[in-house]
Amino acid sequence: MIQTLTGDIEFIESLRGKKATLLLALSNTKTANIQASEGSSQNQLTPTISSEFICTGQIKSMDIDPQELSNSAHLTRYIHTKTPFGRIELLDLGLETKPKLNYFTLHDFEIPISQNIAKGANIDAQAIFEKGINFGQSYQCKDEYIILAESIPSGILTAMTTSLALRYKNKEDFSACSESKTENLLKLALSNINEKDDLFAILSKVSDNILIFNAGFILGLNNSIPILLAGDTHMAALLLIINRILKLMGGVMETSNLALCTTKEVVEDSNNNIKNIVETPLFKINSYYVDYDLLDSECQDITGSSGALIYGILNGLTKEDISQKI
Amino acid sequence: MIQTLTGDIEFIESLRGKKATLLLALSNTKTANIQASEGSSQNQLTPTISSEFICTGQIKSMDIDPQELSNSAHLTRYIHTKTPFGRIELLDLGLETKPKLNYFTLHDFEIPISQNIAKGANIDAQAIFEKGINFGQSYQCKDEYIILAESIPSGILTAMTTSLALRYKNKEDFSACSESKTENLLKLALSNINEKDDLFAILSKVSDNILIFNAGFILGLNNSIPILLAGDTHMAALLLIINRILKLMGGVMETSNLALCTTKEVVEDSNNNIKNIVETPLFKINSYYVDYDLLDSECQDITGSSGALIYGILNGLTKEDISQKI
Repeated sequence: MIQTLTGDIEFIESLRGKKATLLLALSNTKTANIQASEGSSQNQLTPTISSEFICTGQIKSMDIDPQELSNSAHLTRYIHTKTPFGRIELLDLGLETKPKLNYFTLHDFEIPISQNIAKGANIDAQAIFEKGINFGQSYQCKDEYIILAESIPSGILTAMTTSLALRYKNKEDFSACSESKTENLLKLALSNINEKDDLFAILSKVSDNILIFNAGFILGLNNSIPILLAGDTHMAALLLIINRILKLMGGVMETSNLALCTTKEVVEDSNNNIKNIVETPLFKINSYYVDYDLLDSECQDITGSSGALIYGILNGLTKEDISQKI
Repeated sequence: MIQTLTGDIEFIESLRGKKATLLLALSNTKTANIQASEGSSQNQLTPTISSEFICTGQIKSMDIDPQELSNSAHLTRYIHTKTPFGRIELLDLGLETKPKLNYFTLHDFEIPISQNIAKGANIDAQAIFEKGINFGQSYQCKDEYIILAESIPSGILTAMTTSLALRYKNKEDFSACSESKTENLLKLALSNINEKDDLFAILSKVSDNILIFNAGFILGLNNSIPILLAGDTHMAALLLIINRILKLMGGVMETSNLALCTTKEVVEDSNNNIKNIVETPLFKINSYYVDYDLLDSECQDITGSSGALIYGILNGLTKEDISQKI
């Protein structure tokens, strides 16, 4: 059920049976307000209420039926009840509304919500990157490895914009651009980039807090503990940023403990190409996807739970368990 | 399957997936010899042999078929085999017969068995309370939280007597008083209390070693680690004692890491009201009960395993697993 996308199966197999800390990176970007107005179901409260639900099975910050949450949130919660994570911790990387949680560790980095990329996201990229580095250098994981997942409405758009602004020619690798208004947002964002902008100036204009922070976080961890980046092309775009930072600094990074995972849904989606993104950087990593053949076509939108799915499988959860839930 | 009785679900959810130390507080009181003679099934060896069985699956100190042990002991043992505790440790708070265990940590506090409350229990309450304080201050938990369970024949009677002697007007909150001999024991016990008796003098006459020690233990821990008090109205009465001690000392106690759990059996028993007891003190705590709807009516007497049940659920045990065992 776990398939290798790049590299070798051994890395993920070495984590079988071990407890992981689930880190949920959460942020809003005002880009989502604009993108949402064209009919996208993006909701700025999604990171907040999804994380509340995953942690407790209840929603605190909004009066809605949990059934309205994504399949991804439900599946992650289900897996946490069947094969519990060692702990769940939250990274507040610029939220409109903080999750109403008192017993779960919420790392607050005092990062403001980023602005609409059409007008320049106005992110202090250097400062956020340094916060990520510091967090990575000081973080003491109480479990044996980290699963890093994320929730940021309009994230695929900011990931694509970031990649193109960093002069990767890989627009087709991302799937955010199906609607004309989104296409327009992309053009406006890129039009703000000047020839003279350095790497961090570019990120400040077109990226988002999660990508910038996590680039620092990964570099700060410096391969000291296994970490599984769980998500879609937004998470993969993190590798593209790290690649540019390493080039800028003339550095190299050990990546034997760094891997990415996603779902078959993403891998087989002809509107993007996550494998291309993973293979673009100079460094190589192992990557995997969950091959959930038993799930039928109505089970979309579970990519956000790819880390949880792999964790469940590595801890004995069967296809039947997962199918039954869905 | 875990329901909130008071407070919020988040505390217990934050323990999901984490290992706990099960502390078994064990004691006898000679009150049980009197209560037993009227046909109660109280057995002074119950704490000893139940703890032997929970730890090892065998009984050492008595020649009986394990089938004769309570459902509670069997269920706790079952859960320890399916989703094992990090460790089990025993607190000898005055046992006639020490458990025959060499590899399990047995904390021996050299506390004598308390006497029959009808004649005055003759407990050195101050000394036992201080032993509890010292233990709480020095205890190094090797797991992420503590589940405190207990076994003391006639415990509900001593809990009720203690509560009434401490001038709570809540006799109906306890269920020990259905028989006339028990009612008589209660009256005799209360008749020993004088106007001039201070808190510890009262406890010395009508209480039991476990209630007094654990009041000190909880205060000694001072909210430093999550602790789940598992049991019935006897365990809840601990809160009433702590409440009086805090009043006497003019102190307050942080309780964010203190919670209580019981079973649906206790919550729905119209002969007592554990929720009232939990809500009586000035301090507030989270409390929970296990809602084991799938278990049929012959499955009484599992309240002693409420901590184990919650632990099992928090570590992936399903209703089906539990029902199957019972």
